[in-house]
Parts: sequence; structure tokens; C-alpha cells
Amino acid sequence: MDKARKLTLLNDPIYGFITIPDPLIFRLIQHPYFQRLRRISQMGLSYLVFPGAHHTRFHHALGSMYLMQKAIRILRFKDIEISDKEELALYIAILLHDIGHGPFSHAMESSIVEGLNHEAISGHFMNALNDEFNGELTMAISIFKGEYKRKFFFQLISGQLDLDRADYLKRDSFYSGVPEGNVNSERLISMLNVYNDELVVEEKGIYSIEKFLTARRLMYWQVYLHKTSLVAEQLMIRALKRAKLLVKSGVYLSGSKALQYFLKNDTDARNFDGSALEIYAKLDDYDIISALKDWQYQDDFVLKELSRMIINRDLLKIKIKSKKFKSEKIQSHILSISEQFSLTKEEASNFVFQGEISNQAYESKNDGIQILMENGKVCEITKIANHLNLKVLAKPVTMFYMCHPKSKL
Amino acid sequence: MDKARKLTLLNDPIYGFITIPDPLIFRLIQHPYFQRLRRISQMGLSYLVFPGAHHTRFHHALGSMYLMQKAIRILRFKDIEISDKEELALYIAILLHDIGHGPFSHAMESSIVEGLNHEAISGHFMNALNDEFNGELTMAISIFKGEYKRKFFFQLISGQLDLDRADYLKRDSFYSGVPEGNVNSERLISMLNVYNDELVVEEKGIYSIEKFLTARRLMYWQVYLHKTSLVAEQLMIRALKRAKLLVKSGVYLSGSKALQYFLKNDTDARNFDGSALEIYAKLDDYDIISALKDWQYQDDFVLKELSRMIINRDLLKIKIKSKKFKSEKIQSHILSISEQFSLTKEEASNFVFQGEISNQAYESKNDGIQILMENGKVCEITKIANHLNLKVLAKPVTMFYMCHPKSKL
Amino acid sequence: MDKARKLTLLNDPIYGFITIPDPLIFRLIQHPYFQRLRRISQMGLSYLVFPGAHHTRFHHALGSMYLMQKAIRILRFKDIEISDKEELALYIAILLHDIGHGPFSHAMESSIVEGLNHEAISGHFMNALNDEFNGELTMAISIFKGEYKRKFFFQLISGQLDLDRADYLKRDSFYSGVPEGNVNSERLISMLNVYNDELVVEEKGIYSIEKFLTARRLMYWQVYLHKTSLVAEQLMIRALKRAKLLVKSGVYLSGSKALQYFLKNDTDARNFDGSALEIYAKLDDYDIISALKDWQYQDDFVLKELSRMIINRDLLKIKIKSKKFKSEKIQSHILSISEQFSLTKEEASNFVFQGEISNQAYESKNDGIQILMENGKVCEITKIANHLNLKVLAKPVTMFYMCHPKSKL
Amino acid sequence: MDKARKLTLLNDPIYGFITIPDPLIFRLIQHPYFQRLRRISQMGLSYLVFPGAHHTRFHHALGSMYLMQKAIRILRFKDIEISDKEELALYIAILLHDIGHGPFSHAMESSIVEGLNHEAISGHFMNALNDEFNGELTMAISIFKGEYKRKFFFQLISGQLDLDRADYLKRDSFYSGVPEGNVNSERLISMLNVYNDELVVEEKGIYSIEKFLTARRLMYWQVYLHKTSLVAEQLMIRALKRAKLLVKSGVYLSGSKALQYFLKNDTDARNFDGSALEIYAKLDDYDIISALKDWQYQDDFVLKELSRMIINRDLLKIKIKSKKFKSEKIQSHILSISEQFSLTKEEASNFVFQGEISNQAYESKNDGIQILMENGKVCEITKIANHLNLKVLAKPVTMFYMCHPKSKL
Repeated sequence: MDKARKLTLLNDPIYGFITIPDPLIFRLIQHPYFQRLRRISQMGLSYLVFPGAHHTRFHHALGSMYLMQKAIRILRFKDIEISDKEELALYIAILLHDIGHGPFSHAMESSIVEGLNHEAISGHFMNALNDEFNGELTMAISIFKGEYKRKFFFQLISGQLDLDRADYLKRDSFYSGVPEGNVNSERLISMLNVYNDELVVEEKGIYSIEKFLTARRLMYWQVYLHKTSLVAEQLMIRALKRAKLLVKSGVYLSGSKALQYFLKNDTDARNFDGSALEIYAKLDDYDIISALKDWQYQDDFVLKELSRMIINRDLLKIKIKSKKFKSEKIQSHILSISEQFSLTKEEASNFVFQGEISNQAYESKNDGIQILMENGKVCEITKIANHLNLKVLAKPVTMFYMCHPKSKL
Repeated sequence: MDKARKLTLLNDPIYGFITIPDPLIFRLIQHPYFQRLRRISQMGLSYLVFPGAHHTRFHHALGSMYLMQKAIRILRFKDIEISDKEELALYIAILLHDIGHGPFSHAMESSIVEGLNHEAISGHFMNALNDEFNGELTMAISIFKGEYKRKFFFQLISGQLDLDRADYLKRDSFYSGVPEGNVNSERLISMLNVYNDELVVEEKGIYSIEKFLTARRLMYWQVYLHKTSLVAEQLMIRALKRAKLLVKSGVYLSGSKALQYFLKNDTDARNFDGSALEIYAKLDDYDIISALKDWQYQDDFVLKELSRMIINRDLLKIKIKSKKFKSEKIQSHILSISEQFSLTKEEASNFVFQGEISNQAYESKNDGIQILMENGKVCEITKIANHLNLKVLAKPVTMFYMCHPKSKL
Repeated sequence: MDKARKLTLLNDPIYGFITIPDPLIFRLIQHPYFQRLRRISQMGLSYLVFPGAHHTRFHHALGSMYLMQKAIRILRFKDIEISDKEELALYIAILLHDIGHGPFSHAMESSIVEGLNHEAISGHFMNALNDEFNGELTMAISIFKGEYKRKFFFQLISGQLDLDRADYLKRDSFYSGVPEGNVNSERLISMLNVYNDELVVEEKGIYSIEKFLTARRLMYWQVYLHKTSLVAEQLMIRALKRAKLLVKSGVYLSGSKALQYFLKNDTDARNFDGSALEIYAKLDDYDIISALKDWQYQDDFVLKELSRMIINRDLLKIKIKSKKFKSEKIQSHILSISEQFSLTKEEASNFVFQGEISNQAYESKNDGIQILMENGKVCEITKIANHLNLKVLAKPVTMFYMCHPKSKL
Repeated sequence: MDKARKLTLLNDPIYGFITIPDPLIFRLIQHPYFQRLRRISQMGLSYLVFPGAHHTRFHHALGSMYLMQKAIRILRFKDIEISDKEELALYIAILLHDIGHGPFSHAMESSIVEGLNHEAISGHFMNALNDEFNGELTMAISIFKGEYKRKFFFQLISGQLDLDRADYLKRDSFYSGVPEGNVNSERLISMLNVYNDELVVEEKGIYSIEKFLTARRLMYWQVYLHKTSLVAEQLMIRALKRAKLLVKSGVYLSGSKALQYFLKNDTDARNFDGSALEIYAKLDDYDIISALKDWQYQDDFVLKELSRMIINRDLLKIKIKSKKFKSEKIQSHILSISEQFSLTKEEASNFVFQGEISNQAYESKNDGIQILMENGKVCEITKIANHLNLKVLAKPVTMFYMCHPKSKL
């Protein structure tokens, strides 16, 4: 381990420094699979609203690993035993938990790679890396899948207070410049403990949880579901679907080889073999945005317009309400667009559509946040007097939106 | 001006909010020429060293305009008259001062668009916009060119304490996570004043200047001239030059139409007409990085290797010294590479080369920083007792570097 | 106003700088009445829990004035007319709104100056200053009393979103190091507007309000009502009451002349004339703490012990519950203390006692927060779909505490 | 050690949390000797210029201990062995290194306790505590005195890069709101290493050192030697000296018993026995400021005026130059004051005086900062090419000041 002794440091505007704790971690970060995350934006098209939001999945993965280092130090201080081997496996698991993300992955998964989800692909990547690294990732993979014997390990990777969430809320808030969503991740972590092999939060951390859940709620409404990002994402989905439709119908579209592959082929978990993974590993934001830039000059009116709207940030109008929009209103709007531009109704519905968004800051069932009270008992947070207000955050809130062109396309 | 009364706000992690002060500014920001800056990174390849450094020229231009708003408010408070028309012109001038930047512009200007520089192209863009906006940019252009009657206007746009610099040092420090370079731009601005139509700094701001110049020096050595960024940029220059050479010799290379144009044609200030500008306006980071990704699979060994090194961040080794490297050492290195990979010496010199870097934090001659002393006199800063140490910062420091492959390519 | 043109700046860790906007303001700040606030801690004994919480009422008053400058600038930008004279009056009113605070004023008002409250005394101070400054404070006083014709002026000084609150929540959070309570005051202010002469918040600011109210709730539970601060304050009240009792029964106690005066005399609003004001103006934290330090060596067991506990931070134990403590339990505790130390039951009840605390983050009735919707209508915030959760914050939460000695006194 | 397992946390605005690493540390903090530091301001009268600068020596001592925890973790990571016993001793040594400070100690040491300095008194306190804690502080005391076998231990407590300095520069900058002095202590610490039993800084930390030294220089000129603080401190020295003179000549002055003791008696290192220490331990800011408040109404003109000036912040004028003031000028000024107020010349010289201040950011001799170069050699920092500018910071700069009344006293 003498190389790591050099204490490789990465500058991070949020935590100051991120230290690479082990040479194996260093080699994983160097791998092209992981370097690729440098070219995948964490927040997709949100930069069209928040000009600072250009941070990447690469940076987030490192940040989550940093928080894992904090968490392990705190838990060991509280006499929770974690072996050196387990420690390393936890670092690997958190570092690679999101490695399966593609570019604009929410849009991609709703369009050209519908049969795939990024968790499954993360698993594929980890297996491939485990082969390459002679089985050194085996324990990490079992933690990632929730199969490792110690339950709280999985909760640190994937749960209501996992370190993924602790990093991305903080990081997204930071880069978007929306301080309402800033969570004090390091403080929260210092309140963690383990009880009966489950992750719990000490009672004195209860207001930090309250703030965390409120911040999460606000981040959803103000940032992740911001109406302008929402339109942009919907346009991206429609552009990619349209492109796939055109390609399948025989039209030639420019684009990188990797993108061409996914436009031509339907992929799902079953046919996603090693060679598909290799192609997927070449796909990043640059393929998508470069294609859209080019497609602005395509013959197809729908693809051309959708691409232009995204690239020049000349988006559709959007309205948001707590009730559904009337179907007739939308239909008449579609009709007028289809007439105006000689489109079929189906084509026109790329420019006039509705949908719903939903936000639930906290899921109290199953995997609720457990508080370790000063009297030694454990209690789910919404059941504690003086925190009954959190029950409200456990109720999902649904809103409806409608998009349509401004005066003219 | 009633639209602006809605107070359009942009979230900025650094200043909190950036306000759009006028509808004309809003329309300029909406223009595709300006939206394009969203796709041009402010710090080029520096993100390979500083994973947070993904902020764009779009964001920087807005930040500079924010500081201009501050500066105008402060100067007016100090009874310097600035008319509403002049105010608007100053906003336009600072907003557009960098609009001519292309992707990785330092690398581009040293390779495929050698005859052009971004200041000249900024001028071309402004003229084109002025035509489109019916002459509303005329005063802004005259400020930008240094032709406007009030000298300190130009100093606010381009000088040792201009608002461009005040924003980028702060912003680059912030996003790269290198707090050594953090300058207190807002504090500095509050110390500005005007004397004999020249920008001066009030005496109580003298330590802020000292900190500013020190921070600037540190940003150069720690960030802008960071050895890893330096290698990456040198590889980029060589990759682009190689690509141009190949294209000119008849080899087909993939790449966007805009990029193809600049690989095929030599451009300079004279032949840079409207249609060249239109093509240039389509070029951004996505064209370059997408091309490099593709060129990794090219036949040409040199282009392939250079591209792969950048994309996978598998760069050359670099050494930095205060003295020149011996020519024989470099020649023998080149020879061994040329033999190992059957390259000509010229080709091999893409992988073994030396160069120099220089850093001068402050230029005391001509346009030195003038301090308005409490006794009413004005004095150039390095001449003030107790600040003689700043003289050192006015001396350029030169260092030499040499790059070569690690053990093997 | 040429002196102010020098732009007097005060360094503030929170806002960067605070500017003195007018020579009259400068002279008010220089006045011994106002300088006295430098010696009155904003958060009383909270520093026993939060070692950074030593900021003063002087600093808070300046901070509130800073926010008023922001608010006026924003409102004028939105075409709300505010004359220069009104502007100055608003600065004076916010600057002096808390000038009547004495040292540890919540404890004082519950012990030795029971008949007085700081708002009334602020009025007395302002009147005295108005005499000294030849009526220049007249409009400010009428704003402070809610008598000025423009209703929103009073709301800026005293309301659910006044600038007093906007500063103290932020400042107390900052200095105590409890980021859960950090509110984005400057952002909130940028969302303010005026509608029908009432202060309203624009719809896009609605999440900022939600965060503001949550932060306020958390500050109450985590800081203002922190159990250790609570004990310390209760001990302070009991020490001061005991001292007054002793003095009235003829015992000599050391202490400054000003403190002696208030121990000897009962004051209330009616007998609070100019000479009482003059004595009150000499009283600050130094009088109280110096007396407690000395009283540690008094003969009276009760006063001695209470003083020692505060000075050495060797406080009573405290328990907090959502239900009342049983009276018998407390009585038996008192009995045992009175026997152990040969005290009367009344004396012993200084060491064993219960009480209640209550927290209501938002008061929706009467002066609720009004939102200016994008459709032009105004709506009280808890009535807006998607913000119904705020209703919970409008319900007061009451908790009960009991204090008693650790093993031994 | 099971109590500490509860992980006692103190909120700190700068570091987030400070953890108490051991029950012995907890008991030392609880001791009245240490609690007393809560009542001693870190920056004396600087709050008259920087209204936020009310932080205490208590807080600074905790902050230094926090940084020691960081330093030990980093050094152990780099394979420097530090035993658990040594670790605890280092915490104690840094925690108590400043415990000997009295109120306004620079002023006190120049007036009423001339024979004493705070380092010596720190030693007295530690010895007394060591008796009380049965020798548990023995190793800490030997480190504090520089007698412990491992040289770098002492350098961590007292050297050019010690953790005392690393905390106070950062903390003073933070609370005074002067960001020019902000040093990145945590970054600096991560660059520390040990070579031949001496503390060294790794080469990549060299710019952090440069920033550290520049920040230190700026803190001296902008804050510690700020002209207004300087006057206030000089007035404090003169007030205390005058009080002592009066008391020795038989005048009765009000004041706490502890203060009275030091006004009546001359103390020096030899006669500073246990009972003097006990009295000294009762002295804090409250004794001094309360006395000054009272002395405003004394008969003696000199004491009365000096006290009033400090309390009401109505200070003398001050001028600063790079050359000495002419003696005649001062003498004639003194003469005029002595006539105007019927004072002796000696008395008048309390209101008209000159002095000098000096600032040397870095002391390169003896204990210079050693850089561990990447080639494995160690080199004093000013000898490294590209950092020759630091030589300037090693030169002391001396300035001269003169104080005198404004128009009238």
C-alpha cells in the first residue's frame, strides 16, 4: 500500500480535499469505465436553469466515497467493528454504485434504452471490473446487491440516509446555487450509529434529520422538478424517441457509432452482453449533445425542431397545476399545431403534451429512519412527539404540467 | 423596460443571484451566439486535475456583468456620474467581452485557427449583433475597443483590476476548489474610485490589492500552469495540429462540419467573413471532444495515441525546472521513441518535447495600479513604503518543462 | 451629506461589509446609548452551550440596518416609491428598534425589572435621542410605533418577515455554528414586494419562506430553547430575584451603582423617568457577570450557589418531556434538598423546579405571510396547495422541563 | 474511556464540530481555570473596530486542539508513529498552551503585571492542574516546555507553523470579517510530514505556505496593528498604569478584589506563588471593563478621561508613518494639553505620545519552515527558486505612530 501513502488528494470545492484511501481505489478511478463519468453531467440539462450545475457523476462518486470515509471513522469511534477488508469493500461499493449511469440517463431510460436501468448496468460494469481485477471486488459487489451479512452496510450505500444521497443533495444544492437544499452531510454522519445491525440516528441528530428531509423536499420542487428542466428533459426524451423511430424506418442520422448502435438496436437486460457493455461504455454527454447540434439541420421537422429547442434553449411553455389539464384543451392545441405545420397528430403531440410529477420527501414504511433515543430505545422518526410534522413529508404530493409552443414554433 | 421589472434572477453559487438589469441584456443572452458559451468550458482541460472545474464561459460572462453592476453602484455613490445609457453600454461590453472564445481556445489558437485570436473574433460577433439589434450596441463596441471618451470605462473592461479578472479569478478558484486563489472581488470593487478619469483604488484597499496580486500569482502556478493541465493542453495542441496535417494531406477524419471546416481551411483575420463567423459560431467543446473520442480508433498512430491520452487521462510525464533541459537529452529520447514505434523524428516529437511557462502577477509599467492616498495624491502601488514587497510580483518568473512518455506508450 | 461619501465600512463576517448610509446614522451609532449595545450579548448565556455565540446587540442592530438597505433597493427597483426622508427614517427605526434591551434581558424582565419590557424602553431611548437630535427622529419613531401612514413600513420593522428577524436568525445561526438555522435573508428580501400597502412575497419565493419557517422552528428547539441555555437562564432569574430579596431585606451586596439601583427599587413603566433611564443606560453584561462572580463568595447559600453554578458552568440537571412532571416528585425532591442544606422549602425551590416552553414557528392569523401569486392574486401561505404542510408549523408545540441538582450541590 | 464514547461535540462556526477526544480532556475543560477563558476575549479591544471580534480564548484553545486531532491523523497516515499516550499529551499541551493569558494580556503585561508573562503563568497553571490530576499532565508539560525527546512535538505547539497560529489566524480572520487573513489551516496540516524528527512541509504545499505567510502579514497590518485598536490598547495600558499609580499613592479605586490585588502589589515570576495564582485565576475581562466603566466617574482627570475614551469609543486621533515623528512636535502638543487641563507634562503625555510597530511575517533563521522536496531533500523555503519573493516577508517592516486628542478632550 506504499503508493497510497503519498496521500493522493483531489481538490473539492465542497469538502476541501478528497483523499484516495487505497491503491486499488486509485486504479479503479484510472480505469476508462470510471474516467468516462467525467463526461456525464450529474444533473442532465438542469444547467439550462442553473448555470453552475455542470458537475459530473465522476465528482459525485468521489464525494460519496469521501463521506463513506467519514462514516467509517465515526462508527469505529463508536466501537462498531469494521475490518480493513470491509472498509475497502465499502469504498468500492459506494464509488461504483452509479457507474452504470449513461448520459442524461433519466431521458435515455425513457427513450432509446427503455429496457435497461442504470442499477442493472452498474452491476454489469462491476462484474466486468471484478474479472479484470481478479476478484478483488467480490465483497463490494455483495454489499452493493444487499447480499452481505451486515445489513447496515447496504443502508450506507442505498437507504433513506445513504451516503449517495448525502453527497448528491449537498453537491447539487452547491453547484446549482440553491442554498435551500444545502444539507449538512458531515453533521448528519456524525450522528449515525448502529443498533441491532441497523443504521440508526442518535436522538440529538433529530433536527438535522428534519432539516435534511425538508431540504430534500425543497430540492425536488425547486431544482429537480423545476419546470424549465422538466420541459428540457421531456424534449430530450421526444428527440431521442423520434431519432430512433427515424433510424428504424431507414433514415440515416449522423451520430457517433455508440449512439448509432443504441438507435438501431433494442436493448434489454437479457441481450446486454459484454459487447453491448463495451459500446455503452463509449457513450456520454458528448455523443448526445453533438448529435442534437447536428440534427438541427435534419430534414425531419419534428427532430429538427426538438433539437433546436434544446440547443438554443428556446423551449416550450409550461404550466403547472395541482389538477389535471382538460383533455379537450390539449387535443385542440395539438390539432392546431398539426394543421399549422402539416404534421400528423402523433407528430404534433411532441410539442403539446401533459404529464405529472410527484414528490415524497420521506418514505416512512419499510425502511424508515430509526432514531436511537437517549433512553436506549429505537423509534421511527415520525412517531416521536414534537416531530409529528414530519408525517406531512411522508405524504406524496402530485402536480400536473402541460407543455405547448409559445406563439409560434 | 417593464419586462425587466420582473427582476429575472439567475442562481449563482458565488454571488447568490445574478440579476438581468435590462430587456436588451436579456435578449442578448437568449441569442444563440451567447447560448453557445454554455458549451464552452472556462478552464479547458483543467477538470482533469480539478474535478469541479466544469464552469463555462457563459457563467463567467454573467458573473462579470454582476460585478459591473456593483462597480457602477459604488462609483455613483461616490458621485461619479454615469448616465443610464452608459450604464447599459458597460453591461453589454463586459457581457460580450469574451464572446469570441472558441472551445479550448488557447489550444485552438496555437493549432487550427492560428491566425485568429478571440479578442478579434469578439469584435466580429459584436458587429454582427449590432447589425441585428439596429445599432443598440454601438456605444458598447466603442468602450470595448477603448475608443470611448471616458478612459476608466475601458479600464473596467480590460485592465489590471478589470471586472473580467475579478470574476474569473474568484470563479476559477471557487470551482477548482483552490482557496489560495480566492479574491474578495466585492470588497475590491468597493474600494474603486475615479481620479482624473482614471480608475484608482482608495488607500484603505491597499491590502486587498496585495492579496489580489498574491492570489493571482498562486492561481497561475497552482492552477492555470498546473503541470498536468499543461501536458493535457500540449497534447491537445498536437492532436489538433496532427489532425489538420492529415486532413490537408487528404486523409478523411470524422468530425462535425464546423470542425471539418477549420481543419481544411486556414483562417486569419482577413478572410474571416460572415460565413466563417457563422461556422465558427457552431463550434464548441462538444465538437472537439467528440472528435477526439472518435480519433482514438484512427489509423494514424500519432493522432490515435494523442487522442487516447486525453480522453482516458493517461498523459505524458512532465518535469518542471528553473533551467532549460538539455537538448541532447530530449533528442535521444525522441530517437528512442521513433525507433520503438517506427515514427519519423518529427512524429516522435509529439511525445517528447520541452517548453517554457512564465508568470508575472503584476505589470507595473504603463497601466499600473494607482492608489488614491488619504492625502489626496495618486501613487503607483509598488512605490508605496510598506508595499515594496509588491515589486517582486512585478518580476516575471520563467520555468521550463519537459514531457515524455512514462515507461511505454 | 459629504462626510458619508467617504463610505464608512464596517467589516461583518456575514455580509462582508456594512455601510453607514448617512452622517446622522453615524452620529447615532457614536452615541453612548448605542455604544452600550457593544457590551450586551445578543444571546445571553447561550455561549455556555455554543462557544461562538458572543455576538452583541450592537452588531445585530447594524446587520438589520444592512438588510433594510437591501430591502429598500429591491422595492425601489420594483417601482415602490420611498422618499429619501422615509429611507433615512427606516434606517433609524430598524437601527434603534432594540436599543432598549438590557443585559440578559429575558432574565432581567423576569426578575429585577419585572415591570418593564425592552420595547417600552426602546421608546424611551428614542424619545431622549429625538430631543438631543432636535426632532430628526420623529418620523422614525412614528414608524417604530406603527403610526406611520404606510403600513408596510411597520412590517419591515416588526412582522413575520421583518428585517430584525431576518438578521437575528441568520446571525445567531452563524455564530452558534448551527447551520440548520441558517436562513438566506438576502434571497428572501429579493422576493419582497408591496401590494395594497402591505408587504407580500412573490410566488417564486415560496420555498424560501418554507425554509425560513423551518429554520426558525429548528433554531428555537436547537438553540434558543436548548436545555442547557434554559437551565442557565432559569438560574440567572433565580439569582437576580434572590439578590433583590436580600437587598430589600437589608443585606449589603456588592455590585455596580446601576445594578444596586435596580436591586433596591421597583421600576415600572410609570416611574421610569429620565434619571432612571440614565441609570439603565449604564447597565450591561459586565455589571451582571461581575456581580455574580463576586456573589460566589456571599454568605447566603442560595445566592452563592446559584452564582457559582453559572460562573463555573456547573449547572443543574434538566429533563424535557412532552407531558407535565408530577408535582409529588418535585415536592419530594425539594424536601430532600431543604433538609440536606437546611433551607426553607421556598429556598430549596431555587434548585428544584419545573416549567414549560413553547414554540410556534409561524402565526397564520392576523399578520400571516401573504404570497403574491403569478396570477396577480394574494394568498396567505398556508392556504396554497403544495404548501399545506406549513399548517403544521402554525401549531404551537409545548414541552415541559424539570431541573434539579446532580448528585450533590 | 467509555464516557468519551458518547462523542461530546461542540458546535464551531469554523470547523463544524469540535470533538472532545478523551474524558481527561473533558474534565480539564470543566475546570474553573479553563472555564475562566470563556470570559477572556481573544482579541482584546479589537471589537471596537471589528464588531464581530468577540470570540474568546476558550474557543481558540478548543480550535487548536481540533487541529491537533487533524495533524495526528495525517501524520499517522504517513506512518509517523505516535502512541496513544503521546496523543493525549499533545492534546493537553495544545489545549492549555494559552491558559496563562489574563484579560487584555498585552495591555496587562505592559502595565499592572509587568513582571509576568502569560507563558510563565501557563506553566504555573499546568503545574497546579498536574497536582490536582495526580500527574496525568506530566508528559504534556514536558512537551510544552520543549523538553520532550521528540522535537517535532514542540514544533506542533510552538513554531512557525504550529497549530496555535493555524487556529488563531483563521479564527481571528473569520470573526473580524477580514477575509484577507483567512488561511486554509486544514489544507496546510495535510501537507505536514516529519523528517529527521523535524516538522516539514511537503513540496506540493509550498503555495499554501506562501499564502499562509502573506495572510499573516496582512492580518498584522489590517487587524492586529489596526490603528484604532492600537490607540485603544495604548489607552488601556495608560489607564491601568495610572490606576496603579493612584492606588499606590493611597487613592481608593473601586474594582473587584482580584483587580485590587494586582493594583496594590507588584508581582513577578519569583513571588508568584499559589495564592497569587488563585487570585489571578479570578481575573478576567469583566473585572477590567467594569472598573473602567466605574472609573469614568473618578476624581482623577487622567484616569477618568482614559476610561471614558475606551468605554464610549471616543478615542485619540492617530497618525501612522514610515518615519519617526519629530520630538518637538510632540513636546509642543503635550505642553498645550498640560496647560489646557492643568496637568503636569507627565500626566499630559497620557494623551499625546508616539511609538513604533513592527511586522515580520516570517523568521527564516533558526526555526525556518523546511520544505520536503519531491527529490527527498529538505530545503528552507526562502531558498527555493520561484519562491525567492518570500525573502521579502522575512524582512521586518517598522512603522511609527503618534496619538493626540482631536480638537478637544
